[in-house]
Amino acid sequence: MLKSEEHFLEIINEVFPNIHPHMLVGRGDDCAVLVCPSKMCMSSDLFLEDVHFRLRYFSPEDVGYKALAVNLSDLAAHGAMPLGFNLNLTWPSYLDVKFCRSMLESMAELAGHYNLALTGGDLSFGSSLGLGVAIWGQSPENILLRRSCLPGDIMFIVGEVGLARCGFMLLEEDSQDIHQYPLSAASHLRPVPLVLEGQIAAGKKIVKGLMDVSDGLARDLPRFLLQDTGLQIDPSFHINQEVAAYCGVINADPVIFSLLGGEDYALLGGCAEDDWPLIQSSLASAWKLGRVVSAQGIYLEGQRLTLKGFDHFEK
Amino acid sequence: MLKSEEHFLEIINEVFPNIHPHMLVGRGDDCAVLVCPSKMCMSSDLFLEDVHFRLRYFSPEDVGYKALAVNLSDLAAHGAMPLGFNLNLTWPSYLDVKFCRSMLESMAELAGHYNLALTGGDLSFGSSLGLGVAIWGQSPENILLRRSCLPGDIMFIVGEVGLARCGFMLLEEDSQDIHQYPLSAASHLRPVPLVLEGQIAAGKKIVKGLMDVSDGLARDLPRFLLQDTGLQIDPSFHINQEVAAYCGVINADPVIFSLLGGEDYALLGGCAEDDWPLIQSSLASAWKLGRVVSAQGIYLEGQRLTLKGFDHFEK
Repeated sequence: MLKSEEHFLEIINEVFPNIHPHMLVGRGDDCAVLVCPSKMCMSSDLFLEDVHFRLRYFSPEDVGYKALAVNLSDLAAHGAMPLGFNLNLTWPSYLDVKFCRSMLESMAELAGHYNLALTGGDLSFGSSLGLGVAIWGQSPENILLRRSCLPGDIMFIVGEVGLARCGFMLLEEDSQDIHQYPLSAASHLRPVPLVLEGQIAAGKKIVKGLMDVSDGLARDLPRFLLQDTGLQIDPSFHINQEVAAYCGVINADPVIFSLLGGEDYALLGGCAEDDWPLIQSSLASAWKLGRVVSAQGIYLEGQRLTLKGFDHFEK
Repeated sequence: MLKSEEHFLEIINEVFPNIHPHMLVGRGDDCAVLVCPSKMCMSSDLFLEDVHFRLRYFSPEDVGYKALAVNLSDLAAHGAMPLGFNLNLTWPSYLDVKFCRSMLESMAELAGHYNLALTGGDLSFGSSLGLGVAIWGQSPENILLRRSCLPGDIMFIVGEVGLARCGFMLLEEDSQDIHQYPLSAASHLRPVPLVLEGQIAAGKKIVKGLMDVSDGLARDLPRFLLQDTGLQIDPSFHINQEVAAYCGVINADPVIFSLLGGEDYALLGGCAEDDWPLIQSSLASAWKLGRVVSAQGIYLEGQRLTLKGFDHFEK
């Protein structure tokens, strides 16, 4: 087991470099001194045992990876270039040094991929495993805001929706079939933050806002749209094959299932109709979700979807 | 009880302004966009129920205040000007809306005192109350680093040491005598971050490093000093009257008690001997701790202090 804070800091210092072009003073002081861009994006997200993940099916490597990935996704939604992060860690007595090292090595690998500095943090012993990340990076010149789309505009998704929910449900029920759903399991355990895609989107001045779909489209759409607008879903709504197969098994509507599914960390964006072909050609993984309409709600084939407990337009 | 994340965000938005000169995009998006100084200090600290505080004797106002104050203290130790912070909050089901509002109002009052922006954060329900803060501010030109003092230099303290430990012990044992120790109770419940004092110290180019004494002098001194140096404690070591009184009651050595006591968030600094009078005249609450010596350890009247479990020079 981890003997002390000093023991933990030794592992941190073995795993994470303490030099970085944006770090004048690194870890080991009261605070880091950073060389910052003049416009900086900052975000923070918690990643807690038995709230956001279960140790029954998350490996230490999955935990370390995902705690950082969900934060990277927030920067991706602004098209920002991630530069560094702080880690607040709550450590329970039942996890050993091996777990700690594996978790941090995996986090460091993802951080290294984006050349991110670990600029500080805090450690406390506690009753369960908890990771709180605060991440910062350089904002693009073109700041992408929510609530910029108008009726008639195209709404699009970069990435998949529904897969992580499918993976979550199979993993929660300890399903033997999980191996038939590799993308679903990976989407829940190791979602890929769409950092480059966000930067490409922000580079196009034609994108009207971007956000990451962390709570599911049904919950996140009303946060993205102007108050008296809604979404007419495109009849060609993209359904992933694994989601379609799983919905067949559980007898669920795959469109509704995909709208409800959170934690895919896909990006939701909007643009004028004329600009859609250019978005599509710049972002290979972008697909058309539908069109903004001048009425609240989500509509499919003329019908307003009013599934209880999901339609946050109702509030 | 708190009904939903939306309910919580309503309170946050009532209590904390969402405009600030350093905030281009505020809360309510995937990330905030900040106007940053080119050199920025950043730090983060956890403040967890039953690890850092007990609800038995911390009011909601104390919790909200102290979670931010301990983070402000990290910036104070760099002489930085605090500008903003993110709050990651873990909320248990047994606390009600009134607690939440009181806690946040108290935090907002302290934030307002320093004109700090709340720039974002995250909320999760959990088994106990937890606050994780990431704070940032403008670094002074003169960066104050640890491990800068040489043998012969004066070490000084700004603020008090020992009071918070005295308060903690009395509060933990539900002592009826707590009312005789008002400074001690306040030091544990509401430590004052020495932000202005840190800025004044950093403004003097003569200060050789500064750090906040959060874990107690005995633990923090070795982190501040160069490896093969130590401290000869001044015979006039300042002992607060309440600490002296409490040590009389529990039959403890007041110097040792003060060296062990953490969480006062006093500032520890160093300077050349000739510069000490100027420090003393600029910082009314500064007092001489002792002198750096060319041998590891803490010495009092020629004797090396080797209390078990406290002398981190032993490691």
